[in-house]
Amino acid sequence: MTDITLIEAAARRMQGHVRRTPLLNAPLLDRVAGRRIFVKAENLQITGSFKARGGWAAVSALDPQARARGVIAYSSGNHAQGVAHAAACHDAPCVILMPADAPQVKIDNTRAYGAEVVLYDRGTQDRDAIGARLAEARGLTLIRPYDDGQVIAGQGTVGLEIAAQAAEAGVTTAEVLVCCGGGGLSSGTALALAAHAPGLRVRTCEPEGFDDMARSLISGKRERNAAVSGSICDAILTPSPGELTFPILSRLAGPGAVVTDDQALYAMALAFTHLRIVLEPGGAVALAAALFGADLPDTVIAVASGGNVAPETFAKALRRFA
Amino acid sequence: MTDITLIEAAARRMQGHVRRTPLLNAPLLDRVAGRRIFVKAENLQITGSFKARGGWAAVSALDPQARARGVIAYSSGNHAQGVAHAAACHDAPCVILMPADAPQVKIDNTRAYGAEVVLYDRGTQDRDAIGARLAEARGLTLIRPYDDGQVIAGQGTVGLEIAAQAAEAGVTTAEVLVCCGGGGLSSGTALALAAHAPGLRVRTCEPEGFDDMARSLISGKRERNAAVSGSICDAILTPSPGELTFPILSRLAGPGAVVTDDQALYAMALAFTHLRIVLEPGGAVALAAALFGADLPDTVIAVASGGNVAPETFAKALRRFA
Repeated sequence: MTDITLIEAAARRMQGHVRRTPLLNAPLLDRVAGRRIFVKAENLQITGSFKARGGWAAVSALDPQARARGVIAYSSGNHAQGVAHAAACHDAPCVILMPADAPQVKIDNTRAYGAEVVLYDRGTQDRDAIGARLAEARGLTLIRPYDDGQVIAGQGTVGLEIAAQAAEAGVTTAEVLVCCGGGGLSSGTALALAAHAPGLRVRTCEPEGFDDMARSLISGKRERNAAVSGSICDAILTPSPGELTFPILSRLAGPGAVVTDDQALYAMALAFTHLRIVLEPGGAVALAAALFGADLPDTVIAVASGGNVAPETFAKALRRFA
Repeated sequence: MTDITLIEAAARRMQGHVRRTPLLNAPLLDRVAGRRIFVKAENLQITGSFKARGGWAAVSALDPQARARGVIAYSSGNHAQGVAHAAACHDAPCVILMPADAPQVKIDNTRAYGAEVVLYDRGTQDRDAIGARLAEARGLTLIRPYDDGQVIAGQGTVGLEIAAQAAEAGVTTAEVLVCCGGGGLSSGTALALAAHAPGLRVRTCEPEGFDDMARSLISGKRERNAAVSGSICDAILTPSPGELTFPILSRLAGPGAVVTDDQALYAMALAFTHLRIVLEPGGAVALAAALFGADLPDTVIAVASGGNVAPETFAKALRRFA
């Protein structure tokens, strides 16, 4: 069960290994938005997304024997890189299970971090069965992307930093907009803020059509999305809220926000112009909500969760909105 | 005369107003480069370049009467925005003299920071005469882009931060590559490092054809460039080294490095992919030198001096090199 003690312990284990990302702002961005916006730039995190935190927290929490046997994760994206990086730094073997049709650059990058990439055919093979077989044969520990207490604790260190950085900036009351897939980052951040900055409230942000968390927060039970793909915000598309993350958010988060793909692209363009940072579409959803949300206070903090984006997608955002 | 005392005083006046930018690195960037590269990300500075430091140092050093009368600067780029921002935060009137053919977005941005923009015709009007007349009529203080003791002190705070951040990263010996126009950033940084991190040595980096500083460091006197324009690295094109900056660099800097425009574009693309930051061509010259330099040690620190770049130029870098 993730609580503030677990988050603070994860922060101690990360020190010197995971980056304390800056809380950025820009006078001209505030003018465009009509409110004061701070951006927690997790795109500047060591692997380009907050997932380096959860990966580090999970790998570093293993007992030495389990760590020496290694870890396994299912991911073609940011979670894969976060886990692979953490494992490499701990000299732990790491297997990443990826669909064979994943973009070559993602496969290459995950290998470059030192992981063994095992490919499977999405159409004919059962990922979970392959993973379970590998894990059993080699004694690997599975690291889930969000439904894992240590992973949530790791992502929660974002909230510890926001609490400290907001206080330094003189901000004691604000809404904290968080890009939300399964809810690991949102729930961990919510726990940390509840303990250290009770005037800061988390609100989850999702792409249109994939607003399972927003709907679940209304209905009080875990809703599912109709589709599994079809938004440009690929990094944060999950079928439904996590089993561990949802109860936390149900207790601590405000209503969920929803943005369109075009709003995410527009936020990427503004982040380029005014903050000089690179965001991926899924990582720009919270900034998009900060720009377009109707029911927001004068000061908001948007977590920019990642910046691993194909050059063509980034160029498209610039062409259309910069 | 700028010395470490003046730099440290500037740092104290900036506290809470100018950003302590992060020192970034990325495992995959190091693999590409074949050496360890740290990037001091001044593109994340409040106005998108280190010029916010020099502007702040100069405006905050004025006596209250002079400050109330206001300041004037000649610039269409980063210096204009740095001075305008500092002046606005000090409630000081600010006039920026710009050529009438400057890009509209630069004029608009400078106005958005609160400055009064006065346009002149490059072909028929004498900038210095107009500026002198305005300054005299209104009692404005001219803030020069690099040949000003307080401006050099302000830029030198980059060096104070690098000294502290390198020590945190365990780096005590390295070359510090700095994008160089008139030499304000390079000379201030060199002074700060000489005092606080003597194992770190500054080397100036310039675009091919505009290597006045590199040639001056060899000949021992201030050389001039043959052309005044013609490189994509527009932010750092100056006719010759500064009168105040050159003696400092002559004493403290290593040999200057020179890169091509294509190498600068390539560095922009790598910064996009591996660091998820936006650099302008002139701001990427030091990173380009870190990537392509032949006579470099295992560890280098590159100062990424700015990120105010037109979307078309950035898209070009991505198209060609990302």
